[in-house]
Amino acid sequence: MNEIPKFAAPETVTTGPIVGSRKVYAAPKSRPDIRAPFREIALSDPNEPPVRVYDPSGPYTEDVARVDLARGLAPVREAWIEARGYSAIEGRAIRPEDNGAVSADHLAPLCPAIRTLRAGCPGQLVTQFEFARAGIVTEEMIYVAHRENLARETAVEDAAATIADGESFGAEIPDFVTPEFVMSEVGRGRAIIPANINHVELEPMAIGRNFLVKVNANIGNSAVSSGVAEEVEKMVWAIRWGADTVMDLSTGRNIHNIRSWIVRNSPVPIGTVPIYQTLEKVGGDPLKLDWEVFRDTLIEQAEQGVDYFTIHAGVRLAHVPLTAKRVTGIVSRGGSIMARWCLAGHRESFLYERFSDICDIMRKYDVSFSLGDGLRPGSNADANDAAQFAELETLGELTKIAWDKGCQVMIEGPGHVPMHKIKINMEKQLRECGEAPFYTLGPLTTDIAPGYDHITSGIGAAMIGWFGTAMLCYVTPKEHLGLPDREDVKTGVITYRIAAHAADLAKGHPAARIRDDALSRARFDFRWEDQFNLGLDPDTARAFHDETLPKDSHKVAHFCSMCGPKFCSMKITQDLRAEAEAMAGMAQKSREFIEKGGALYVDAAE
Amino acid sequence: MNEIPKFAAPETVTTGPIVGSRKVYAAPKSRPDIRAPFREIALSDPNEPPVRVYDPSGPYTEDVARVDLARGLAPVREAWIEARGYSAIEGRAIRPEDNGAVSADHLAPLCPAIRTLRAGCPGQLVTQFEFARAGIVTEEMIYVAHRENLARETAVEDAAATIADGESFGAEIPDFVTPEFVMSEVGRGRAIIPANINHVELEPMAIGRNFLVKVNANIGNSAVSSGVAEEVEKMVWAIRWGADTVMDLSTGRNIHNIRSWIVRNSPVPIGTVPIYQTLEKVGGDPLKLDWEVFRDTLIEQAEQGVDYFTIHAGVRLAHVPLTAKRVTGIVSRGGSIMARWCLAGHRESFLYERFSDICDIMRKYDVSFSLGDGLRPGSNADANDAAQFAELETLGELTKIAWDKGCQVMIEGPGHVPMHKIKINMEKQLRECGEAPFYTLGPLTTDIAPGYDHITSGIGAAMIGWFGTAMLCYVTPKEHLGLPDREDVKTGVITYRIAAHAADLAKGHPAARIRDDALSRARFDFRWEDQFNLGLDPDTARAFHDETLPKDSHKVAHFCSMCGPKFCSMKITQDLRAEAEAMAGMAQKSREFIEKGGALYVDAAE
Repeated sequence: MNEIPKFAAPETVTTGPIVGSRKVYAAPKSRPDIRAPFREIALSDPNEPPVRVYDPSGPYTEDVARVDLARGLAPVREAWIEARGYSAIEGRAIRPEDNGAVSADHLAPLCPAIRTLRAGCPGQLVTQFEFARAGIVTEEMIYVAHRENLARETAVEDAAATIADGESFGAEIPDFVTPEFVMSEVGRGRAIIPANINHVELEPMAIGRNFLVKVNANIGNSAVSSGVAEEVEKMVWAIRWGADTVMDLSTGRNIHNIRSWIVRNSPVPIGTVPIYQTLEKVGGDPLKLDWEVFRDTLIEQAEQGVDYFTIHAGVRLAHVPLTAKRVTGIVSRGGSIMARWCLAGHRESFLYERFSDICDIMRKYDVSFSLGDGLRPGSNADANDAAQFAELETLGELTKIAWDKGCQVMIEGPGHVPMHKIKINMEKQLRECGEAPFYTLGPLTTDIAPGYDHITSGIGAAMIGWFGTAMLCYVTPKEHLGLPDREDVKTGVITYRIAAHAADLAKGHPAARIRDDALSRARFDFRWEDQFNLGLDPDTARAFHDETLPKDSHKVAHFCSMCGPKFCSMKITQDLRAEAEAMAGMAQKSREFIEKGGALYVDAAE
Repeated sequence: MNEIPKFAAPETVTTGPIVGSRKVYAAPKSRPDIRAPFREIALSDPNEPPVRVYDPSGPYTEDVARVDLARGLAPVREAWIEARGYSAIEGRAIRPEDNGAVSADHLAPLCPAIRTLRAGCPGQLVTQFEFARAGIVTEEMIYVAHRENLARETAVEDAAATIADGESFGAEIPDFVTPEFVMSEVGRGRAIIPANINHVELEPMAIGRNFLVKVNANIGNSAVSSGVAEEVEKMVWAIRWGADTVMDLSTGRNIHNIRSWIVRNSPVPIGTVPIYQTLEKVGGDPLKLDWEVFRDTLIEQAEQGVDYFTIHAGVRLAHVPLTAKRVTGIVSRGGSIMARWCLAGHRESFLYERFSDICDIMRKYDVSFSLGDGLRPGSNADANDAAQFAELETLGELTKIAWDKGCQVMIEGPGHVPMHKIKINMEKQLRECGEAPFYTLGPLTTDIAPGYDHITSGIGAAMIGWFGTAMLCYVTPKEHLGLPDREDVKTGVITYRIAAHAADLAKGHPAARIRDDALSRARFDFRWEDQFNLGLDPDTARAFHDETLPKDSHKVAHFCSMCGPKFCSMKITQDLRAEAEAMAGMAQKSREFIEKGGALYVDAAE
C-alpha cells in the first residue's frame, strides 16, 4: 500500500503551451517591471483580434519552458518583499516527525532550492490587509489589477467590454480594475491576495466577489497512494487547465518534504489544512492533539511558504451535539477530528480558544485564513441545519478577530445543498462574515450520482458563484469513491472553470463575454480550429470533432457530422443572409418590417 | 460516407437489468390490469426498505428479456384503444421517396410487426386532451398516476414522502397523484401524455410542471453516418439510462423503414421533426417545400405511431429579419429551413398558415405538438432577443388554436442562455403559452466549452427544470462537434437525469428525496454496494471505487482511498457517536446544551 515516493525530476511535469495559444507577459504602462501572465489565442480570421485569457498555469506553459524543479520557479516577488525590510530568520529545524518519522530509505529528499526565510515583526506592515488598511498599494495589488483586466489599460479599450449585463446580487464589479480598487477591496476584507512572504515564486491573484470567480483544485497523497513526483505533477497539471489555487491535502509520510517541492515550484497560492499534519505528528490519535503541536505545525508550514491555512476553529464543543441526528454526521476530516477531541474531554476546541495566537503566527508571514466549515452537510438531508449555521455564525465572529489582528480571511462553505437552499447560504455568509470572500465546495445539488459528482456539484457551484462565492473548490468524478487520477483532475478543473465562467457571465463581469462571443463567431463562420482553440480544452474538442470527420478537409468544411451539409442550419442561415443582402439587404428589410408592417406581425410591446 | 444500413437483429440491443436492481410491475389496487414498470433496488441492510425508482427502460431490463425486434414489444395499450372504437384504416402506401429513394440493394427492410392501423373520426374523442376535457379518466391517466407515485397507494404510505420542502415557483405538485389529478392537468393543458393511438407498445408517461421532470434523448442518423441496427440500439441504450422520450432526428436514407423498427420497439414516446423528411422528399431544397408534401409526411409519420411532432410554425416571415444582427443567426435546422423558404418567396410560412389543418391531422391520431423554437439563440450573445421572444409569442397564439382543435401541446425552448437570463424564459413561456409544458434544450450557460456542453447545459437544465420546465432535452459531450456515440449518449442521459432530479428536489417533489437519503445513509454506513446500486450509474461508481481499492475486502472497508482509515471523517463520526452514546447519549447532551447552556454558544435567533 505505501509505495516508495519517487523523486520529482523535471521530466515528470507537463510543459509547453496549450494548443493554439501562447503565453504572453504584459505590464501596466506605469509599472513595466510588473509583468503579469496571460494566454493569447490567435485567430485565423484577420478581422478577429487575438483573445487574451486569464492564465494561472505559470511558466510551465511557456513556448520553451525552462523548468528545474530542484531550483524552483523564478522568485518574481523577491525584490518587492526584500524592499519591505523584513528580518531574515533562521527558521525552525526539520524534525523526523515532520515527515511522519519515515525511515531513511523511504525519505523523500527536501527540495534543495534556497530562499531567504523571512518573518514580519510587530509594528511592521506584513499582510496585504495591513498595507491596504494603511492606504498603501503593493506590487501584488498592481499585478492583480492588471491581471483581472486581462491586460486592458482602460475600460473602453475593448469595445466588447461594454456588452456585459447581468444580475450581480450586490457585487460591485467595476468596468476597470485599478490597483486602488484592489487595495480598497482587500482593506475592506472583501478580497484577499493569498501571498505568504516566503512564497516568492507566487504570481499574485485575488479572491473576492468583485473579481473573476476563482477555482481551487485539491491534490495530495493519502496513506494508501501517491508519491512526490506525482504530487508536483498534479499541481502543474491542475494549474495547466485553470486551477487558480491548489490545496495540498496530503496526510501520508514525507509530508514536509513533498510540500517543499510543491511550494517552490508553484506559481499559484498553496493552501493546506495544518491539523492533518498535526494529527500525523501525534500518531493519528485525535485525543493526543494539543496546542503546542498545532502551533509548531503552523510555524513549520508558514515558514515553508504556504499561502493559506484551513483552520476549523468554528467547530466548538457546543456544536457537536447538533450533529447527532444528522443522516451523514460530520463529513469534514478536520471537523470530525476536532469534534472528537472536544467531546472526548468535554472541552472547548483549542483552535477556538487559541484563535488569537493563531492570528499572531499567521500575520507574521501573511498566511491567509480559510476558516474551515468542519460541520458542512454531507448530504442534502443535512443541508442548512442548525450545526452548519451555528458554525457559520462562529466563523463570522472569528473573521472580525482575524481582521483586528491584521490577517486576511476567507470562509469555507458547503458541501451538499439542494438548489433551493443555496442562496440562503450565500446571503447568510455575507451577513455573518462581513462580506469576507466565500470559498465553497460545490455544493452538490443531489446525492444520487456517485461517479458524476463533478456535475452534481458543478450545477451548485455555478449558482453559488453567481450569487457571490469568490472561489469554487472543485469536485472530481471520483468524489466519494476514490482518489482522482490525472484525467479526473482535468475533468474536475474544466468543469469548475465552466461553473466559474458561467457565474462571471451571470454576474455581469465586463470582460467575461469576450471569449464566448469570439467562439460563437468562429462557430458561425465554420472556423473550426478557432472554435477548438477558444474552448477550455482544445484537445478534447478537436478529438471529438475528428472522431466522425477526421479528414483535414473537414476542418474547413461548412458543416459537420451532426447534421451533414444539407441540414446545416448555420450554412442555411449564411446562404439566407447572402441572398437577403443581395436583395438590398436584410437590414433594410428589417427596418421596413419594424417601421411599417412590423407591428402587424411582432408585438411591439415586447 | 454512406454506409449500407445493417438489419436490426435482436442480438444488437442491450438487455438485462441494471446491476443491483430488478424490474417490477405494479398496478393500483383499483385496476390490477394496469401494471406500470418500476426498478427496485434492494439494499443490504435489513432495516432499509428497497428503493423503487421511476423506470422508462421498458422490457429490455427485465431479468430475462424476451425481445424480438421483428415482432415489436407487447402492445400494452391495444385493448384500451380497441375499446374506444376507432375505425381501422388502410393507411397510406409507402413510396420510394419515404426512404429517400434508396436503391433496392441499400433498402433497409420494414419492421414486419403487424398492428391494426387506426384513426379517429370527427366527433370521436381521440386525444388525451379531449378525454380530459370531457371528464373521462383514461387508462393512460391511471397508468401515469401510479407511475408518478412510484407505486405508492396513498400519500402517507412512505414516511419519507413527508420530508420534502422546496420552492416550486407556482408549480402545484400534490403529495399524491390521482388519476383525476392527471386528467385535470391534461385538460388544463398543463400536462401532456404523448401517446399516438397507433403506438400501442407505449408505456404511458406525462410531461408537465406538476409531475417529475422528464428527459428527452435525441437519436438519429445523418447523411454522413449510422444505420438501422445502430438506431434501434441507440433508443434502447438511451432509455436504459433514463431517457423518458426519444426523438428520432434522422435525415438520411431509409428514414421511413428505420422509424418502423424504432416505434414498434419503443416503450417511450417517439418524437420527430417532420420537416426533415419532407425536405428529403423534395431533394433537399428548402425552396421546393410545400404544404402538400408536408401534409403527406405528417400522415405518413402519424400512421407509423410517432407520438409528438416538432412543428416550427412560429418562424414567421416577419421574424426572419430580426435575426439579421445575430452573432449566430438561426441555429435550428427546422427554423433555418423555414426562414429560407419564407424569405425566398417573401411569403408567410405554410406551417403557420396551415396550422389549423395540421391540428386536424394530428388530432386524428393523438400526435402531440411540440411547438418548435426555430429561432432559439445559438449563443449567449443572442439570448432572449427580439427574434426569440417574437416567436415565443406566436407559439402562445398557436397553443390556443391547437387546444381549440383538441390537440395536446408542449413548447420548445432555448438553447444558449446565461444563468441570469434563464428565469425570464420560463416566466414568459408560462404567460404566453397558458402554462403548456415547456420543453427546453439545455440551456447552455456559456459558449466556451466545446466537448463539455453536457455540463454547460446541465447547469442551465437543472435551473430551468427547477423554475418549471417539464422536460429537458439532453445535450451530449459531442454537441457542436460531431455525432454522439454510445458513451456520449449515456453521459448525456445521466447528466440530464442529474439535472431533472436536482430540479425535482428543489421544486419540493414529495418523493424525490427518498433516493438521496437512502444513498446518504448507505454512504455513512459504508454500505458500498448499496451506495453504488442506488446511484444513477452503478457500473461507473463501482469501477471508480475499484480503481484505487480493488479488493473485495475493501468493499466492506470502513474507509476509502480518498482519506485512508486514519482520516476518514465518517469513521471518526461513527466512533464519536458510539462514544457519546456510551456516555448517556448524545441526544441527552443535545437537549442539555440547547435547553441550558446552549444559548451561550449557539445564537438562538438562528
